[in-house]
Amino acid sequence: MEEIREISYALDTFYFLVSGALVMWMAAGFTMLEAGLVRSKNTTEILTKNISLYAIACIMYMVVGYNIMYGDGLSSVIPSISFILGASDNSAAAVAAGEASYYSDVSDFFFQVVFVATAMSIISGAVAERMKLWSFLLFAVVLTGFVYPIQGYWSWGEGFLDQLGYADYAGSGIVHMFGASAALAAVLVLGPRKGKYGPNGEVRPIPGANMPLATLGVFILWLGWFGFNGGSELKVSDVDSANAVALVFANTNLAAAGGVVAALVTARLMFGKADLTMALNGAIAGLVSITAGPDAPSLLLATFIGAVGGVLVVLSIVGLDKLKIDDPVGAISAHGTAGIWGVMAVLLWMDDASFFAQIAGILTIFAWTFGVSLVLWLILKAVMGIRVTEEEEQQGLDITECGIEAYPDFVQQSKT
Amino acid sequence: MEEIREISYALDTFYFLVSGALVMWMAAGFTMLEAGLVRSKNTTEILTKNISLYAIACIMYMVVGYNIMYGDGLSSVIPSISFILGASDNSAAAVAAGEASYYSDVSDFFFQVVFVATAMSIISGAVAERMKLWSFLLFAVVLTGFVYPIQGYWSWGEGFLDQLGYADYAGSGIVHMFGASAALAAVLVLGPRKGKYGPNGEVRPIPGANMPLATLGVFILWLGWFGFNGGSELKVSDVDSANAVALVFANTNLAAAGGVVAALVTARLMFGKADLTMALNGAIAGLVSITAGPDAPSLLLATFIGAVGGVLVVLSIVGLDKLKIDDPVGAISAHGTAGIWGVMAVLLWMDDASFFAQIAGILTIFAWTFGVSLVLWLILKAVMGIRVTEEEEQQGLDITECGIEAYPDFVQQSKT
Amino acid sequence: MEEIREISYALDTFYFLVSGALVMWMAAGFTMLEAGLVRSKNTTEILTKNISLYAIACIMYMVVGYNIMYGDGLSSVIPSISFILGASDNSAAAVAAGEASYYSDVSDFFFQVVFVATAMSIISGAVAERMKLWSFLLFAVVLTGFVYPIQGYWSWGEGFLDQLGYADYAGSGIVHMFGASAALAAVLVLGPRKGKYGPNGEVRPIPGANMPLATLGVFILWLGWFGFNGGSELKVSDVDSANAVALVFANTNLAAAGGVVAALVTARLMFGKADLTMALNGAIAGLVSITAGPDAPSLLLATFIGAVGGVLVVLSIVGLDKLKIDDPVGAISAHGTAGIWGVMAVLLWMDDASFFAQIAGILTIFAWTFGVSLVLWLILKAVMGIRVTEEEEQQGLDITECGIEAYPDFVQQSKT
Repeated sequence: MEEIREISYALDTFYFLVSGALVMWMAAGFTMLEAGLVRSKNTTEILTKNISLYAIACIMYMVVGYNIMYGDGLSSVIPSISFILGASDNSAAAVAAGEASYYSDVSDFFFQVVFVATAMSIISGAVAERMKLWSFLLFAVVLTGFVYPIQGYWSWGEGFLDQLGYADYAGSGIVHMFGASAALAAVLVLGPRKGKYGPNGEVRPIPGANMPLATLGVFILWLGWFGFNGGSELKVSDVDSANAVALVFANTNLAAAGGVVAALVTARLMFGKADLTMALNGAIAGLVSITAGPDAPSLLLATFIGAVGGVLVVLSIVGLDKLKIDDPVGAISAHGTAGIWGVMAVLLWMDDASFFAQIAGILTIFAWTFGVSLVLWLILKAVMGIRVTEEEEQQGLDITECGIEAYPDFVQQSKT
Repeated sequence: MEEIREISYALDTFYFLVSGALVMWMAAGFTMLEAGLVRSKNTTEILTKNISLYAIACIMYMVVGYNIMYGDGLSSVIPSISFILGASDNSAAAVAAGEASYYSDVSDFFFQVVFVATAMSIISGAVAERMKLWSFLLFAVVLTGFVYPIQGYWSWGEGFLDQLGYADYAGSGIVHMFGASAALAAVLVLGPRKGKYGPNGEVRPIPGANMPLATLGVFILWLGWFGFNGGSELKVSDVDSANAVALVFANTNLAAAGGVVAALVTARLMFGKADLTMALNGAIAGLVSITAGPDAPSLLLATFIGAVGGVLVVLSIVGLDKLKIDDPVGAISAHGTAGIWGVMAVLLWMDDASFFAQIAGILTIFAWTFGVSLVLWLILKAVMGIRVTEEEEQQGLDITECGIEAYPDFVQQSKT
Repeated sequence: MEEIREISYALDTFYFLVSGALVMWMAAGFTMLEAGLVRSKNTTEILTKNISLYAIACIMYMVVGYNIMYGDGLSSVIPSISFILGASDNSAAAVAAGEASYYSDVSDFFFQVVFVATAMSIISGAVAERMKLWSFLLFAVVLTGFVYPIQGYWSWGEGFLDQLGYADYAGSGIVHMFGASAALAAVLVLGPRKGKYGPNGEVRPIPGANMPLATLGVFILWLGWFGFNGGSELKVSDVDSANAVALVFANTNLAAAGGVVAALVTARLMFGKADLTMALNGAIAGLVSITAGPDAPSLLLATFIGAVGGVLVVLSIVGLDKLKIDDPVGAISAHGTAGIWGVMAVLLWMDDASFFAQIAGILTIFAWTFGVSLVLWLILKAVMGIRVTEEEEQQGLDITECGIEAYPDFVQQSKT
C-alpha cells in the first residue's frame, strides 16, 4: 500500500515536470513567432526581450508571486504576501499516511512558474518594434510578481472567482486574456508603429522578416500546449485522470487543427490567398479557445470550438487594424478575442457552468489587468519613457537597444 | 491489486501521450526540413502546406480514418466505415476487472493520428515548388481520411497482411514507403521543376535556401522518432516492455547515427565533399530503415541497418535524378528506398519473419497507394489542375499562392 | 509486490528514456547556437560538423566508450577495455527478486550516450570557422571513444575521483569543463581566426550571422538541460527521489534565469547595451553552474549560483579575448569557467563536500583532458593538418569543405 502511494506520487510528479518542461518550451515558441513577425531591424531586440522576460518571470514568481497566488489569503479578494519560496517538500511518511499532497510541491511550483512566463510572453509581441526594452522589463517585474498572481489567486488560488464558480481549466482567461488585456493597455499608451496607418486611414502591411521562424514558433507552441493543457488536470495516476489527460491531449490537438483550417478558409474568402500568418494565428486561437475546457467536450466539439476561434481571430485582427490598434503579431486577437470565446465556450458542454460566472470572470480579469497595466504604463511613460525616439524606430531597435544586428551578413532592403 | 492496475493503466497512457506529442513534433521537423530545402521564393507556400496538411490529417482521421483503420472490418480486405470518433473511454471498474484495454483508448487515437500526419508530410516535400496548394490539400483530405487508413487496416488493423505475417513494427512500409509511393505518383503526374533537367540530360542542382532550417528539421525528426518508434511498443509498464522500449530508443538513435556516417562517407567518395544534405537524408534514411524492427536487433546490427540505409539513400537520390524524377527534398529516396530496405532488414534477425510476407507487404502497400494516388492525381489534374503556370513557377509560389514573401526584408538573388 | 517492482522499474526506465531524449535534443541546441554565431559563409560546415560528431559520439560510445566508463576497471585509475556493448537486459524474475538494477540497463546506455555527444558538441563551437572538418571528426572518434570515458570512469565509474569524494552531480566538471578543456587545447594549437586580433592588440568583433538561430539554440539547450540534470538523479519512483527530481527541475530553471539576468546587467554596465549574445551565454553559464549540484540547494541559492555564472561568463569572454584566445561562440567561458565555478559552488551547501576533493577533480579532469587533447591535436596537425588555408578561410568553409552554401538565395555582404 505504502509503495503504491509512493509510485503514484512519483508518477504524478513526473507528469507535472514533463508538462512543465513542455510549457517552458512555449517561451521558445513565442520568441520564434515574434522574431519571425517583426522586421529584421528589430529582431535582436525582441529576442533579448523574450529571453529576459522569461528569466524575470521565473525569478519574480519564486521571490513573491507563487506565495501570493497560492498563499492562504487575507480574504477572498485580498491575498496574503510573503517572500522567497522555500524548497522543502513532502516526506515519504506523510505521503504514505495520505497527509501530504499527492505530488511534489516543488513540481507544482515548476509547473506554475512557466505559466507566468507564458502570460508575460503574450505582451511582448504586441508592443514590438517601438517600445523601450528596459521599460518593458521593469513592467515585467511588476506584472509577473504581483499583477498576475493576484488575479490568479482569485480563481486558481481559491479566491472569489473560484467561489463564484468561474470555470477556466488551464487559463483561456486567467493566462491568455490576462496577457492580452495588459497588451491592449500597452498598445493604447504606446501608439502604433510609424507608418502603419496612413493619413486617410489606410492600413499599411508591415510584413514580418522570417516566415519559417514564425511557423516554427507556432509548432513549438502547439507542442508546448500539450503540457499547458495536459498538465492542468494535475493528476494522471488513476484511470479517470488518465482518461481525462488523454482527452485533453486529443482535444487540444484537434482544436488547433480546427483553428488552422477555419482561419485559412476565412482568409481565403476575405483576401483571396492562402494567408500563412492567418493560419498561424488560427492555430494559436484554436489552442487558446479550448484551453478553458479541454477535458470533457467531444472530439468533434473541440474541433468546432477551435474552428470558431480560427474565424474570430481573422476578424479580430482586421477589426483592430480598423481601430488603429497596432499589434504587430496579432497577440491581442489570438489570446484576447479567442480567450473570451474560450471562456464562454465552456457553456456549450459543462452542465454546471454558469453564464454569469463566466462573464464575471472575464470582466474581473479584464478590468483588473487592463486597469492596473494602464496605470503602470502611464507611470513608466512619465518616469522613464516607454517609446523609443522616431529616429531610433527608423534605425531599428537592434542597433539602438542591443548594439547587435540580427542578420549582419545579409543585405537587407532599405530599412523602412 | 486494483490500485496497481490503475497506476499501470495511467503509466501506459502517459507513455502513449508523451510518445504522441513527440510524433506531433515531427510535423515541425518535416516543415523545417522542406522549408530549408526549397528556394526562398517557394518557402511560405511550403510552410502553409505543411501546417495545413497536419490540421487536415488530424481532422479527417477523427472524422473517418480511425474508424476505418481500427474498426471491425467487413472482411480481411474490406474495412468497415463509420463517422466521427467518440471520446468515451474505459471505466475504472472495467480496467480493474481486466475487461478494458490497458490504456486509454483516446490516447491510442492521439498516438495514431499523428502517424497519419507523418505519412502525409512525406509527400509535400516531393511535390514542392510547382504544385497548386489547394489541389494538394484536397488530395490530403482523401489520403488521410481513406487511402492511408484502408491499407493501415490490412496490417495494423488485423487485416490480411497481418494474417500473412507481415512484420512492420512502427511502419517502415505502412507509413514511410506509403508516403513515398503516393509522392512518386504525384511527381510522375506533375513533372520536374522548370530548369531542373537540361536538354541533354544534365541534372542541374537547385540548392535549398536555408541549410540551418533543414538541419533543424532533421534534428526535430530524430527527436520525434523516439516517440514514433518508442511508442509503438504500445506498453511500457512491465519489465519486458520497458526493456523493449529502451532498446527501441537506443537502436533508433544508433540507426540514425549509422545513416549519417554512411551517407557522409558515401557522398565524400562520390562527390569529394562533405555533403550536408546527404548527411541529413542519411539520418532520415537510417531512422526509416530501423522503423520496421527496432525492438530486437543488437545495437551493432541496428547501426548497420541504419548505415545501409544511409548508403542507399545517396544512391537512390542520384539514381532518381538520372531518371528525371524530380524530388526536391529527397523524400522518395529517404522514405521509399530506405523504407523497402527497412521492411526487408527485419529478415536479418527475426526468426519467424518470412521473406514472402515482407515482399507481399511491400508490393501490396506500393500497388494500392501508388495506384490510387495516381488515379486521384489524374482526376485532380483534369478537374482543377495540379500544376501552377510557368509564370507562377518563375515568380515563386509564395506570391501567387499565399501573397506573402517568406523573407521580405532580405535582398535575394534574381529569383530563377 | 512483484507487480509493484515491475511498475517501478518501468517508471524509472521511462524517466531515463524521456530524460535521454531531452539530452539528445541538446545536440540540436548546440548546432543552432553555433550556426547562429558564425558567419554565413561557415554555416553549412558547422552544421555538418555537429550532426556528424553526434553520430560519431553515439557509435564510438557503443563500440567501446561505455564499456570503458562503466566496466570493472583494472584499478581505480586504469579502466578495463572491451568492445561492442551488448543489448541484453534484466529479466523480470531478477527484477522481482531485487537482483537486477532497478531500471533497464539499455536505458542507462541511452542516457549516458547522449552525454558524450554533449561533451563533444562543446568543442565544435570553439574551433569554428577555421578548422578542417575531417581532422575534427577524427579527433571526435578518439575523444568520445576513449578520452571522455576514461575520465568518466574515474568519477561516475567509481574510480579514484569518486573514492576521493569528488562531487559532480550531472557533470559541471566531468562533461562541461571536460569539453572546454579539450576546446582550449584545440584553440591554442589552431590559433585565432584571420582578422580577429589587430596588430596593436585590438579585438575586432566578428558578429554571428543569425541571432534568432542562436537564441533558438539556447532555448533548446535550456529545455534539454531538464533531461541532463533531471535524469541524473537516476531514479524517480519513490517520494524522496521524486522530490529530488522536482527540485532539480526548478533549480535548473532558476539558475538559467539568474544567469540571463546577471549577464544582461553585467553587459549593460560594461558595454552600455542589452547584449543578446551575453544574455545567451549567461543562460548557458547559469545552467553549467548548477549542474554539479542542483538537487539540494534552495531555489534562491540556485538562482544565485546561476547568477554568479552569468557574471563570470561575461568577464571570461572579455578576458580570453585579451589573451587572444579566439573562441567564436564563447564555449570555453560558458562551459569551462562556469564549470569550475559550478564544481566549487557545491561547497556552498553540501556538508560533506570537501574543498580538496573538488579542486582535485578540477585539476585532474583539466590536466588529463587538456594534456591528451593537446597531444592529439599536435599529432593531427603534423599528420594531416588541422587548419584550412588562408584562402579557404577567406572564401568560407561551406564551399571548400562541403560544397554547399548555407543561404544561397540571399545576397550577402562581401564575405570577409
